[in-house]
Amino acid sequence: MGDYKILNKINSPKDIKELSTEELYVLCEEIRTELIETVSKNGGHLAPNLGTVELTVALHKVFDSPRDQIVWDVGHQSYTHKLLTGRFDRFSTIRQEGGISGFCRPKENEHDIMSSGHSSTSISSAYGLAKANSILGYTDRYSIAVIGDGALTGGLAYEGINNAGKSNDNLIIVLNDNKMSISKNVGAMSRHLSVLRSKPSYYKLKEDTEHFLNKIPLIGKRLSWFVSAIKSGLRRIFYRKTIFEDMGFIYLGPINGHDVELVSEVLESAKNRKRPVIVHVNTVKGKGYSYAEDNPRDFHGISPFDIETGDYGKGKMNYSEKFGSILCDIAKDDSRICAVTAAMTSGTGLIGFSEQFADRFFDVGIAEGHAVTFASGLSRNGLVPVVALYSTFLQRAYDQLMHDASMQDLKMVIAIDRAGFVGEDGESHHGVFDTSYLNAVPKMTVYSPSSYEELELHLKASIYDNDGLCAVRYPRGGELGLPQDYVATSEAYTVYGNENADIAIVTFGRLFGHACKALIDLKAQNIDVKIIKLNRIRPIDIGAVKAAIACKNVFFFEEGVKSGSVGSNFASMLLENNFKGDYKLSAIGDEFVGQATMASLLNKCGLDADGMIKTISSTLK
Amino acid sequence: MGDYKILNKINSPKDIKELSTEELYVLCEEIRTELIETVSKNGGHLAPNLGTVELTVALHKVFDSPRDQIVWDVGHQSYTHKLLTGRFDRFSTIRQEGGISGFCRPKENEHDIMSSGHSSTSISSAYGLAKANSILGYTDRYSIAVIGDGALTGGLAYEGINNAGKSNDNLIIVLNDNKMSISKNVGAMSRHLSVLRSKPSYYKLKEDTEHFLNKIPLIGKRLSWFVSAIKSGLRRIFYRKTIFEDMGFIYLGPINGHDVELVSEVLESAKNRKRPVIVHVNTVKGKGYSYAEDNPRDFHGISPFDIETGDYGKGKMNYSEKFGSILCDIAKDDSRICAVTAAMTSGTGLIGFSEQFADRFFDVGIAEGHAVTFASGLSRNGLVPVVALYSTFLQRAYDQLMHDASMQDLKMVIAIDRAGFVGEDGESHHGVFDTSYLNAVPKMTVYSPSSYEELELHLKASIYDNDGLCAVRYPRGGELGLPQDYVATSEAYTVYGNENADIAIVTFGRLFGHACKALIDLKAQNIDVKIIKLNRIRPIDIGAVKAAIACKNVFFFEEGVKSGSVGSNFASMLLENNFKGDYKLSAIGDEFVGQATMASLLNKCGLDADGMIKTISSTLK
Repeated sequence: MGDYKILNKINSPKDIKELSTEELYVLCEEIRTELIETVSKNGGHLAPNLGTVELTVALHKVFDSPRDQIVWDVGHQSYTHKLLTGRFDRFSTIRQEGGISGFCRPKENEHDIMSSGHSSTSISSAYGLAKANSILGYTDRYSIAVIGDGALTGGLAYEGINNAGKSNDNLIIVLNDNKMSISKNVGAMSRHLSVLRSKPSYYKLKEDTEHFLNKIPLIGKRLSWFVSAIKSGLRRIFYRKTIFEDMGFIYLGPINGHDVELVSEVLESAKNRKRPVIVHVNTVKGKGYSYAEDNPRDFHGISPFDIETGDYGKGKMNYSEKFGSILCDIAKDDSRICAVTAAMTSGTGLIGFSEQFADRFFDVGIAEGHAVTFASGLSRNGLVPVVALYSTFLQRAYDQLMHDASMQDLKMVIAIDRAGFVGEDGESHHGVFDTSYLNAVPKMTVYSPSSYEELELHLKASIYDNDGLCAVRYPRGGELGLPQDYVATSEAYTVYGNENADIAIVTFGRLFGHACKALIDLKAQNIDVKIIKLNRIRPIDIGAVKAAIACKNVFFFEEGVKSGSVGSNFASMLLENNFKGDYKLSAIGDEFVGQATMASLLNKCGLDADGMIKTISSTLK
Repeated sequence: MGDYKILNKINSPKDIKELSTEELYVLCEEIRTELIETVSKNGGHLAPNLGTVELTVALHKVFDSPRDQIVWDVGHQSYTHKLLTGRFDRFSTIRQEGGISGFCRPKENEHDIMSSGHSSTSISSAYGLAKANSILGYTDRYSIAVIGDGALTGGLAYEGINNAGKSNDNLIIVLNDNKMSISKNVGAMSRHLSVLRSKPSYYKLKEDTEHFLNKIPLIGKRLSWFVSAIKSGLRRIFYRKTIFEDMGFIYLGPINGHDVELVSEVLESAKNRKRPVIVHVNTVKGKGYSYAEDNPRDFHGISPFDIETGDYGKGKMNYSEKFGSILCDIAKDDSRICAVTAAMTSGTGLIGFSEQFADRFFDVGIAEGHAVTFASGLSRNGLVPVVALYSTFLQRAYDQLMHDASMQDLKMVIAIDRAGFVGEDGESHHGVFDTSYLNAVPKMTVYSPSSYEELELHLKASIYDNDGLCAVRYPRGGELGLPQDYVATSEAYTVYGNENADIAIVTFGRLFGHACKALIDLKAQNIDVKIIKLNRIRPIDIGAVKAAIACKNVFFFEEGVKSGSVGSNFASMLLENNFKGDYKLSAIGDEFVGQATMASLLNKCGLDADGMIKTISSTLK
């Protein structure tokens, strides 16, 4: 917690309403210092927050939060908002176990309106808030969605705009346009915004023109068509009409988002319009910290870094990088291979692929549903698409997995990154549901490798040994050490340890490494255990079930939610095959698990070696 | 199979290329007759097909299917396409068991490019097809997406447009604009289209203007800005610029979609543009059959009807109607209740609600994701949204259920209509996955009533007895008779029959009626069975498990996929509670089940009374 002249005195948004313009700019600089210092220690989203300092200050100056409700899309740009809403003293705990979240959390603070983390939701929920206010008669309250141009590539944002257009509720959308998504923004909407950005027009010119044009009377039917056409043409000379106006919004902008006074003025003028308003604000991602301005992609979400040098340990090997490099190797010899990502070229390790195979690489924007359906078209005409998505975002393509992939009987591979706990991003980002929800997708094959070597084997098996829809899921971070005598395989399952042991651990993926450690410890306690490691978790091979059937005790450990899990399918198969032993399924409970290190989360859920040992030895006592 | 002068001779699209214009119109009339006669017998989608007869004929005249690939969005307008692609002789089997599908199915015919059924997917998959053709060097092939204005409200369509805009593949989007979705189309895009529709402009005028304007040279930097503004203004005088052009498409239209020659001419001119093209075609839904033109909503998808009178047995009570009427009763006394639907006002039984409580009723368009996220905003400000969706379409709001409903800890009720087999719509429409995929959604409560009376009790329990996210799921059609002595309840489970029986059937929802029949039959065979009926299928009450634990045999019957099912969770709970008996889980296998009557489907899967009796008596032998 730094010592600042103004920031230290801000206990609530009310405190900034009294500040002079000069003081506001000092405040902004203090906030930037605090952001850089804290994120350099804790890691987190830096560039998006540096870009929205002035915008956030202006929002809290003009609106009366939480009576007026500000919804931050994704929430990774809400750090300044946190600093201004009574969380300065706890800001050093951000993203740490027991600390404040790196996203919005209503349980944390009354100024956080919706829990956030996933993209493109803010317009829909803010419209719901505004509509509720109208129904309840709170006609002087505002609902404000703050959304980036990247998030505008998501279909949900469009559905929200389409539904809200021309309504008469107090809805204001602030478009935070930095020409970026997590990576450089892509797609037609992004180009439309670029054109708008580059226009010299200023919102007042437009306002004045509107006022003038509206004074021209429309008399007589025939004349009116002509006059209307002329007016339309004149408008077009003075300013380009935007998609947002076509969709029923009042459009104000574009304006410089680092000018607190201007932003405040325009936000003020967005009030009382009796129609939804979109305020287009140009910002610079990473503003004020040269390393982040120069490299906003790497500084979007970042590990702890050195402030002076900007060094953040780039280039460490991890599952994502390994996946990218394996896919490049495969693509060299197989011209059918395509890679598809949803604005996560870097995060999914595909930068190399995008450079080496530019013609076969597709970043479709934050549009996971489209990624899968687009891939189905590629596949139908003979290519082999590999769609790389984070587990938590694959949820956004669920119907597409069902209807546009599996039901089509087309070859497609989903590379599921960040499967399992992801650590500090917390409840909105853990990939602990795919193990359960993919069970419902007919005919789907799901692999869960436990090492880089298996990642390669499973990816190749998905591409060459399986028809239809396959997935390979792997965790965030690097591989755990496995015993020397374990042989990586793409066979459906492996029995490791004494085959004749009558106690079995059944597990898969990252937990196998923990199980191997537990095995050694348990042996020291004279508990002889075998590990049945599922390499393919869907469908479960009957052989794996048979390997457990004669055991007295079967312990299933799963880094995923318990309900509908692989472990519950295993239980069902055991029972249907006359298992008469004892069974215990350890998995994640019926809740959203919060933020902490991955190690701490596994420990808390009893899924690391310690947890396994405790569960087994206490059960056997 | 009718006897027609021309239609009988059409064996493939090639055969229509030789026809004179006059013959084409005769063909169109013959197709209309065949459509009306067949759908009046089999039921199916009538109005969408009557509206696209000429459009389809023109598409097959201009393009060379299947080399050129036509992707029909949803596919409910593909009947004419089926008649022209060698399926006339089997057309009378449409939507029947063993017959041809009411949607596109590649397995059925090489002219069906993608399996269809869900909305808004065609642009994404057609773009994938086009991109693959470009990569593979098939530069003379076209990919055509035919999409209605209703489907354009879905975010996936926007994601596709955004990604495809300004690409240089042979992608043509035909916008079939009938101002309708399943109901009247809603939202800002629909209004934008209405404006375009109403313009007197004809695509040639625009083409000519473009040509003229492009000849004005742009010389000098200063001058060019001015000239560009003037050109822009002139364009604006002659024609309104469309959203599609802003998104990088060439826009042709709007044109009369019932003029085969004109449509053919414009489609021809859409070729070789080196940019994606959108052809805006105005059609009349239900065209040529007065009852359907007058009432396109009722004749969108319809049961068998009387051709002369248009009568189709409207007003039969079913679960959807009952839901709507119960919700009206609740809303009368509780002003917090809102209803949200995604273009299914009629299908979900909400017409009455929409009339009685217009201020609290929201049809958001075909935008299931937005429906849930919008509802989260309503809920956050104190209202109680009830979101009514079909089970199969709820898949499209999966991440929203996770991130925007459950994770928010907000009160929301999902009314899941068409849960279980839906019959003739087949594999793309059966609601047999929600029982499995909802298991992964933390803290969610799911009820599965077995009668109208329970529907009411469970809906009230969802609204008044539960916090957070609740769902009530109920099947297509009407209730089955239940035994007189069964008492409807919203308790978590009910034990019906002899509590001390050591054989248990565990089941829920519609299957309970079948289980009751089986119980009687089995008793006649001296097999004493109790039924453990789950009223709440998520979370499963431990009491229900305990009621089964002492049984020698437990038979679980589930109208849903087996993998990740309620039955597998039940198995896991049994095992973890030391069950030592035998267990058999009968559910739907790892596949997409095709079309047939609901009764036939339940029978085939062994889920009706007969199937239960067979499974139980054969196991016990």
